[in-house]
Amino acid sequence: MCKILRIHLETGQIKEEKVSDDQTFIAGRALTSKIIAEEVDPVCDVFGENNKLIFAAGLYAGTTISCANRISIGGKSPLTGTIKESNAGGTFAYKMGKLGIRAIILEGLPSEDHMKILHINKDTATLIPADEYRNMPVYETAEKLKERFGEKVAISLIGPTGERKSLAAGIANTDNEGRPARYAGRGGLGALMGSKKIKAVVLDDGYATGPKVASPEKLKTLRSSLNKEILNNEALGRFTKYGTAGMVDITNSLGALPTKNFSRGSFDMAEEINGNKLYQTICQRGGGGNPSHSCMPGCVIRCSNVFPDFDGAEVVAPLEYETISLLGSNCGIGDLDIIAKLNYQCNNLGLDTIDIGGAIGIAMEAGVIDFGDGAGALRLMEEIESNTYLGRLLASGGSRTGQVLGVRRIPAVKGQIMAAYDPRAVKGLGVTYATSTMGADHTAGQTVRMPVEHHKADGQVENSKEAQITNTMHDCIGTCLFINPAFANNKHWLADLAMAIYGKDCQYEDLRNISKATLLKERSFNEQAGFSIKENRLPEFFYTEENPDSQTVFDVSEKEMEKIFDFE
Amino acid sequence: MCKILRIHLETGQIKEEKVSDDQTFIAGRALTSKIIAEEVDPVCDVFGENNKLIFAAGLYAGTTISCANRISIGGKSPLTGTIKESNAGGTFAYKMGKLGIRAIILEGLPSEDHMKILHINKDTATLIPADEYRNMPVYETAEKLKERFGEKVAISLIGPTGERKSLAAGIANTDNEGRPARYAGRGGLGALMGSKKIKAVVLDDGYATGPKVASPEKLKTLRSSLNKEILNNEALGRFTKYGTAGMVDITNSLGALPTKNFSRGSFDMAEEINGNKLYQTICQRGGGGNPSHSCMPGCVIRCSNVFPDFDGAEVVAPLEYETISLLGSNCGIGDLDIIAKLNYQCNNLGLDTIDIGGAIGIAMEAGVIDFGDGAGALRLMEEIESNTYLGRLLASGGSRTGQVLGVRRIPAVKGQIMAAYDPRAVKGLGVTYATSTMGADHTAGQTVRMPVEHHKADGQVENSKEAQITNTMHDCIGTCLFINPAFANNKHWLADLAMAIYGKDCQYEDLRNISKATLLKERSFNEQAGFSIKENRLPEFFYTEENPDSQTVFDVSEKEMEKIFDFE
Repeated sequence: MCKILRIHLETGQIKEEKVSDDQTFIAGRALTSKIIAEEVDPVCDVFGENNKLIFAAGLYAGTTISCANRISIGGKSPLTGTIKESNAGGTFAYKMGKLGIRAIILEGLPSEDHMKILHINKDTATLIPADEYRNMPVYETAEKLKERFGEKVAISLIGPTGERKSLAAGIANTDNEGRPARYAGRGGLGALMGSKKIKAVVLDDGYATGPKVASPEKLKTLRSSLNKEILNNEALGRFTKYGTAGMVDITNSLGALPTKNFSRGSFDMAEEINGNKLYQTICQRGGGGNPSHSCMPGCVIRCSNVFPDFDGAEVVAPLEYETISLLGSNCGIGDLDIIAKLNYQCNNLGLDTIDIGGAIGIAMEAGVIDFGDGAGALRLMEEIESNTYLGRLLASGGSRTGQVLGVRRIPAVKGQIMAAYDPRAVKGLGVTYATSTMGADHTAGQTVRMPVEHHKADGQVENSKEAQITNTMHDCIGTCLFINPAFANNKHWLADLAMAIYGKDCQYEDLRNISKATLLKERSFNEQAGFSIKENRLPEFFYTEENPDSQTVFDVSEKEMEKIFDFE
Repeated sequence: MCKILRIHLETGQIKEEKVSDDQTFIAGRALTSKIIAEEVDPVCDVFGENNKLIFAAGLYAGTTISCANRISIGGKSPLTGTIKESNAGGTFAYKMGKLGIRAIILEGLPSEDHMKILHINKDTATLIPADEYRNMPVYETAEKLKERFGEKVAISLIGPTGERKSLAAGIANTDNEGRPARYAGRGGLGALMGSKKIKAVVLDDGYATGPKVASPEKLKTLRSSLNKEILNNEALGRFTKYGTAGMVDITNSLGALPTKNFSRGSFDMAEEINGNKLYQTICQRGGGGNPSHSCMPGCVIRCSNVFPDFDGAEVVAPLEYETISLLGSNCGIGDLDIIAKLNYQCNNLGLDTIDIGGAIGIAMEAGVIDFGDGAGALRLMEEIESNTYLGRLLASGGSRTGQVLGVRRIPAVKGQIMAAYDPRAVKGLGVTYATSTMGADHTAGQTVRMPVEHHKADGQVENSKEAQITNTMHDCIGTCLFINPAFANNKHWLADLAMAIYGKDCQYEDLRNISKATLLKERSFNEQAGFSIKENRLPEFFYTEENPDSQTVFDVSEKEMEKIFDFE
C-alpha cells in the first residue's frame, strides 16, 4: 500500500493515486524529478499555477534503517529556474513511510489569499485555514502546530520569508525532538511553498502501520550489518564526534574554506570555528548542548548537534559545516556563538543559510558592513526580520544582492550561491557546481572525500560524474550521503534492503540506472527550460583570479565538462 | 580617412586603426556587434576586463542628411547578458563623422579606482583625470564639461547610477543645444561605462574637416529629394506636430498602452497624456517650450520637443512616448507635469526611463506606493538619488525589482522591461520582444505602424522578421527608424547616399545583407553566451492572462518564432 496524494489548491480537491507496480523503486528525487519532468511546463512561471511542489519519501522510509529517512522536496526552482530537489533529515519522510505515502503533490494556485495547512493522518488529508499563522516565525509556528495537532506530528513548514516569496527561502522540517530545523534549504523552494499559500504540511502517523515489510527478518539482519559497518568506520566515527564541522580543518588546509566572499580559501580564525572547537565548546558548556545528535529516526552516525549558549541553553541545532563556513569564514566571522545566532535567525525566518551567508558576504564586499562584523551581520538579520528593503534584498539570496549592489564577485551558478568549498581548490566539486542540474550544490556530487589531488584539474570531470551518479542515487533512495562509505564493500546491500522491504527483485545496478535516468531527465527539463550547456560554467573570477591560499585557478576544460552527462 | 580609436584602460594606451577598404560599409550596429562578436568572450563577466564598450557612428555620420547621425553604443549587456546595441540621437555621431572616427573602443579595466574622461579632438585623444565629477548628476556634469572644453563639444556621459553599476543605467548624449538628454538607455550600458570608470567621452570637432564626401553634388541632390519626401509625408508630419506622443491614441485604442504594470492596455486618463495634450500644453505655456525640436543636426522631422513648466521654464527635452507610457500610464499617472519631472530625474541620475518606469510600476504592484501616486513616484526617484537600498533596487531595473519584491507580473524579456506596447495587442512586436537578440526592445523590430491586424497572431512572425531586418539595417546605417517611410518608394536612395559619400558601389541589397549578417552574428554570440532558443518567449502571464482592453492573450506559435532567424 503505497500511495501518492495530489492536492489541487484551486479546487481544494485531494486525490489519492496508487503507485503502480512498475514504479515501486521510483522514490525520493527520482520521483520528484519524474513528476516535474512529466507534469510541469519547463518554461512556466515558477510562482504560477503550472509549477508544482512535491514531497517524496525514499525507498526505505518508515523503517529505522540508519540515515534512510530523508525527505526529497522538488519543483521548478524560484531561485535558479532549473528543476530542483532539495532534501533534508527529520521525521517527515519517516512518517510518510508509516502512513504509506510515497509522495505529496501540491499543484495549482489557490484563488483566494488565505494561508492553509495541509493536515494528513491515517484516514484523511485536510486543508485547514491558517491565516492565524501568517508571518509567524518558524519555531513559534512549529510550537503552535504541535500544541494543536500533538507533540509527535512531523511538520514541514515555511517562515515569513517563504510567504513573501523571497528567493532564498527554504522549507523547514521537524527533527526527532520536534525542532523545525532540518532544512530543505536550497533553490528557494520555501518561496514556491509560499506561492501555494501552504504554511505547513502536518503528518500525524498515529495508528499508522506502514510500511509493510516483505521480509522483516532479512531487513533486521541487513540493518544490523549496516550499523556494524557504520560503527566500525573510522571516518564516520569522526562524523559522530565532530559532526560536519570536522570539514573545517580539511578545507582550510586545502585552501578551500570560503573566506571573505570567496576572496581566499584559508581563514586565520579557522581554529575558532572548527570541529574541535565546536566539540569542546558544546562539551564544556553542558546543559542542553549535545555534540552528537541524530536528526532522523534510526540514525547511528549522529552527525548533528545541539549548540548551547554560555549558560547551557540551546541556541540552535544543528550547527553544520556549510553554515559555519558561509555565515562564518565567508563573512570573516570567527565566533561560533555569533554564527549559531545567525543560524538560528535564518532557521526562524525560513531561510537557506548558504545563500544568506553568501548574500551577507557580498553585502560586506559592497561595504554595507565590514567583513568580520558579527554584530552587523546580526543587524542584517533584523533587517530581514523587519522586512526592510535591504532585508528583502538579502532574502532574495546572494546572486540578486550582488547584482543590485554592483558587486562583481558573486560566487554563484545559475543564481544559487556555492556551498562551502572553493571550486579552485576542490576542482571536482567545481565541476559539480558548474554542471549539476541544480545550480551550485555540494550534495549534487561531492568529491572532497575522494582520495584525489583536489588542486589538479586532471580527472575531475570523471570524479564529479561518479559523485553525481552516486549522490543522486542516494537522493533517489532517500539515504543520507554520509552513509555511502558503509556500503563500500557491500554495494548490493542498497538493493537488498529494497528487496527486503518490497519483496521484489532489485539489483544495485538498477538503483544506479535510476540515478542516471533521473539526471538525464533533469537535464532534459533544464534544456526545455532554456538552459544551454554554455551556462554550465563558473563565474569568470574563478578562472582568472588566483585563490591565494590554494594558489590555483579553476582550469577544468569546458569541453570536457560539456560531456559529463554523456552516459554510456 | 576613417579610423577606429582603441583605448586600453589598464595601460592607458590609445591606438588608432584604419578602417580597411572592405569594411567601408560596416558602421553603427553592424560595427559594434562585429567587434563584440569577434573580440568579446560571450561568457565573460560583464563588468570584467574582457567586456568592451564600443561607440560607432553610422554610414552618413558627419553629414546633415536628415535623421542620419545616430550613435550606436554596444557591449555585452549588464542587464540582459546578451549582445547589446543601444542607439541615440544628439551630436556625438555627427562629430565623430566630422573627426573621421568610425568607432571608439573602450577595453580592459583600469587598475586604479579613478574616474577618467576621454577627450578627443582633431589631433589627439587623451584620458583626463575626472574624480572631481564623481557622483555628479548628468546635467551638472555636462554643464561643467562644456565650461571646461567649450560649448560646442559633443558629450556622451553617465550619471551616478552608471558609476554604481546600476543595471538600468544608460548613456546620455548631448543634443543640438548641448542638453545631455539623448539616451542610449537600454541594456545597462551606462553601468558598463561605469565599470570602465569613464565618466564621459568628449568630442571637440574644431577645425575638423570630415567627412570627405566623394560626390558632394550627388549627396546634395539626394538630400533635398529625401527632405522633400519627408516633408510631403503625412505620417511624418504628425511626428513633427505631436512627436512620438502621437502614439498614445493609437495604442490606447488598440488596448496596447501599458497601464498599471501591464495589467491592462487602455488608460482612463489617456487624453491627459496624449500627443494633442502634449502639443497644446507646450504651445499654451510658451516660454522655453517647443513642440517640435530636432535632436540631430539636419533632422527635418523634428519629433523631439522641449516641455516647459507652468512658467514656461524648461523641465525636460524631449518628453517621448515610451517615457510617457512607462512612467505615466504604466504607473497609473495621468499628469504630464509629473511624468516630465520623473523623466528629468531619470535623465539626471543616468537611468533608462523604460526600465525605471517598469520598476516603479512593479513597486506599485508590490504595494510600495499606490498606482497613480505621482508624488510617491517622485519620492522613489529621491530614493535612487540618495542611493538607499530601495533606490539601489529600483535602479537595477524592473526585472530584479520584481524578483526581490516577489511580484509575479514582470513584463520583461531576458531581464529587460518591455517598451510601451502590450505584446498581447501588438503581437508582431511581441514576437520581436521574444526573439530579438537584445531583449524586449521596440526598436529591434517595430511592427505597430504596419497595416496589419495587430490583435491577430497570424503572420506576425513574418512581420516581426521583416521589421527586425529593416530596423537593424537602419541601426547599421545610423539612421533613425522614423525616416524609413521616406525611403518607401526609393529604397535605393539608402545605398545611393552611401555611394555618394564613399565613392564605392553599394546596393540596397548590400545594406539589407549587412543587417541580416549582423542579426545572425548577434544571435550566434548569444548562443555562445548560453542563451537558448527556448528563452525566446514572453513571461507566462501574457499567454494566460487576457488583456481586458484588447481582449487577447499572446498566442503566436513558439515553433514559428523559433524559425525567425532562418534567413534564406
